[in-house]
Amino acid sequence: MKQYISENEGRFFDELFSLLRIPSISAKPDYRPYMLKCAVRLTELLKEAGADEASVYNTDGNPVVFGQKIIDPSAQTVLVYGHYDVQPPEPLEKWRTAPFEPVILDDPQTGEKAIYCRGANDDKGQLFMHIKAFEYLVRTGQLRHNVKFIFEGEEEIGSPSLPKWVRENKDMLSANVILVSDTTMISDKVPSINCGMRGLAYLEVTVTGPNKDLHSGHYGGAVANPINVLCDMISSLIDKDGRVTVPGFYDKVVELSDEDRAQLSRAPFDMEEYKSFLDINEVKGEKGYTTMERTGIRPCLDVCGIWGGYTGEGAKTVLPSTAHAKISMRLVPNQKSDEITELFTRHFLSIAPPYVKVSVKPCEGGNGFLIPITSRAYQAASRAMGEVYGIEPVPSRGGGSIAVLADMQEILGIDPLLMGFGLERDTIHSPNESYLLRQFFAGMESIALFYKYYAIEE
Amino acid sequence: MKQYISENEGRFFDELFSLLRIPSISAKPDYRPYMLKCAVRLTELLKEAGADEASVYNTDGNPVVFGQKIIDPSAQTVLVYGHYDVQPPEPLEKWRTAPFEPVILDDPQTGEKAIYCRGANDDKGQLFMHIKAFEYLVRTGQLRHNVKFIFEGEEEIGSPSLPKWVRENKDMLSANVILVSDTTMISDKVPSINCGMRGLAYLEVTVTGPNKDLHSGHYGGAVANPINVLCDMISSLIDKDGRVTVPGFYDKVVELSDEDRAQLSRAPFDMEEYKSFLDINEVKGEKGYTTMERTGIRPCLDVCGIWGGYTGEGAKTVLPSTAHAKISMRLVPNQKSDEITELFTRHFLSIAPPYVKVSVKPCEGGNGFLIPITSRAYQAASRAMGEVYGIEPVPSRGGGSIAVLADMQEILGIDPLLMGFGLERDTIHSPNESYLLRQFFAGMESIALFYKYYAIEE
Repeated sequence: MKQYISENEGRFFDELFSLLRIPSISAKPDYRPYMLKCAVRLTELLKEAGADEASVYNTDGNPVVFGQKIIDPSAQTVLVYGHYDVQPPEPLEKWRTAPFEPVILDDPQTGEKAIYCRGANDDKGQLFMHIKAFEYLVRTGQLRHNVKFIFEGEEEIGSPSLPKWVRENKDMLSANVILVSDTTMISDKVPSINCGMRGLAYLEVTVTGPNKDLHSGHYGGAVANPINVLCDMISSLIDKDGRVTVPGFYDKVVELSDEDRAQLSRAPFDMEEYKSFLDINEVKGEKGYTTMERTGIRPCLDVCGIWGGYTGEGAKTVLPSTAHAKISMRLVPNQKSDEITELFTRHFLSIAPPYVKVSVKPCEGGNGFLIPITSRAYQAASRAMGEVYGIEPVPSRGGGSIAVLADMQEILGIDPLLMGFGLERDTIHSPNESYLLRQFFAGMESIALFYKYYAIEE
Repeated sequence: MKQYISENEGRFFDELFSLLRIPSISAKPDYRPYMLKCAVRLTELLKEAGADEASVYNTDGNPVVFGQKIIDPSAQTVLVYGHYDVQPPEPLEKWRTAPFEPVILDDPQTGEKAIYCRGANDDKGQLFMHIKAFEYLVRTGQLRHNVKFIFEGEEEIGSPSLPKWVRENKDMLSANVILVSDTTMISDKVPSINCGMRGLAYLEVTVTGPNKDLHSGHYGGAVANPINVLCDMISSLIDKDGRVTVPGFYDKVVELSDEDRAQLSRAPFDMEEYKSFLDINEVKGEKGYTTMERTGIRPCLDVCGIWGGYTGEGAKTVLPSTAHAKISMRLVPNQKSDEITELFTRHFLSIAPPYVKVSVKPCEGGNGFLIPITSRAYQAASRAMGEVYGIEPVPSRGGGSIAVLADMQEILGIDPLLMGFGLERDTIHSPNESYLLRQFFAGMESIALFYKYYAIEE
């Protein structure tokens, strides 16, 4: 595959950039036309790469792209999952280049070449590796499997429409493994395969005090300020040991055995490097757990956004009417997103003091899941990445959430395999998202080799 | 004056509206050209009303307008203070009409006619009453005093440049009383004269965690979230009794005698009406004090604005790099704004946990002040308003701050007199600011009568 990449590199960039230029932001309803445009472009790329068919399908939300190449109905089938929607680019002022104008630049720290653009990694860059590895296998006559592709446009908003569509198209999607590149490796020196992800419950809360913004001089001190109240309420959600105070929150959390914890701690972790990468003096989290455990096997609660009152330049002396926050809880097996959403809502309403009104709106959710590392697919992936990187990859428990994979696992009865090639440096979901060319190419090679070893073991 | 108003009403509106249309927002540096435009327009209005001279003066910040009419160097001199700058109009989506397009509409609740526009009351509407009362006295040959006008363009940002300018122009500004209409009355049934105002210390705080926005799934639970930390810190600033926890905050607060408190409690206050006006179930404030005391004689702390992370539509799973808040403290005699700013800064930095960085930026400040109700000017104002409203006005302690008045009082050695005609319903500093025509006209009449009774007592 190395040679094929170097012969076709320019075309690869042109094709990927044509996807990256489309601002397919699923969180913004106004951007719906771009979702369709991006979906259509993906069908073109799939057909050019060698798919027998590729079409755009309507769902209750953004369209799904499905394409396939069936070489032998009795052969094993790989279902490749990816998503073409991206996170909003805000805050715009922190981008060094235009968020939707892909460019290849040197990394300011390392000097290595990388593609800079929203979606360069998450997930357009990563799903594109699959299209090109597939193209290579088709054009060089090495494809031994049936391959199906499903690319959705709502992953970043929790895939509200996909489970229903998957259920309605269960037969068309039948396969032996769901292959996904939408995660990060531990580091570029420590390749890893993700064998478990956290779930998510995401809510927006609003605290309302007086029915209008007030002059803080006339009312300050006599009327509850919704921002102060919101801060009090948020502050009460985590106790001094870093534990979430929502009653019942930990009831279903699977406690790992000492042996399991020892196994997970095999993954190398350098605290000084970690702190230096983030420029922080100290880490902070739940008492009694390591940093790796805190992001891998323990749930948590974070405020992802907060706003209220005057946030412009200068000083405006206002006692605002409302204050808002977006609150995310990362969940672990066997916490259910629906249940946690309900527990949180009940708790948050119950702690509302009498001098304000409080409302809670669920935004997004999904369950976590675990993947057996003894599976045939895991073994093939491990061998493939071991060959490309020169060392055996480590199993890891990822902190992110791909909410829909737990649903697909359940509906289709197939385990996912998370072979992701992102790195921490890529700053997905943040300004200046980028994807190292080195990882982009290593990903393609690893995927092509995965097919090879997955076939051998047949 | 009543007749003069009805004969000239249309022109009055045209002239006032020409001021209101200029978006003289002092908090926004980009709006500086509008400040000059507004200042120039004021000099025209002053001269048309009968001033001997009126000019725009440079300061270190926005220009000052000064005009005067000297009828007899040995007569008493009234110095009228007002400000032509206004608060930012945000949030724009809550305005029912364009913020800088004045219109006369019926109040949705009462049906009474009012001028809707940013600045309709605060303070363009109120300062305009002085220009017209002056015009009436000049044109009808009733003016018995020298009158000086000083209109500044930085009141809403704490008048940073005015004290220096006043000091440099002390002789030009010499007078016997500073007459100001920039406050509210207790209600339209209870006219009041403000005999004390709170001071202000306003700061912006920033909490920085990691050096970039992070994916909350990859880092959540292991890295301190600056929004959560900011909420913890803010929550700790007020204790369960509603007292500010900054060490030394109350050290210089003048405790009123039981007699003084009894005197102030003469002002009528209807708790049910207050709560119903604000649509709140309960009031909240410092333990041991009434609502009137909490806004009149007690200091307080309010968050005027908070922001951080993702605040757009939908769900973005980000652990942000920074979180910010604007914090206002209302001060009472003898708290000094500078001292409180320093105490707050020291305290806020001292409570910063080790896993974040914290910075504090002072934005605005000013001291409170008291005015003797036995003064000749107070007595004249009381008689004037008593005649217009049919009942004797009540002395009140206002909650707002006009920072510069304490400075002018000190530099010029003259007491201010706060004869304000705003009402709570005017929602100054908020969307849909308006000013009842009834109050607008009653204000002009009261001011004209003030000059009459101030002269009689000479």
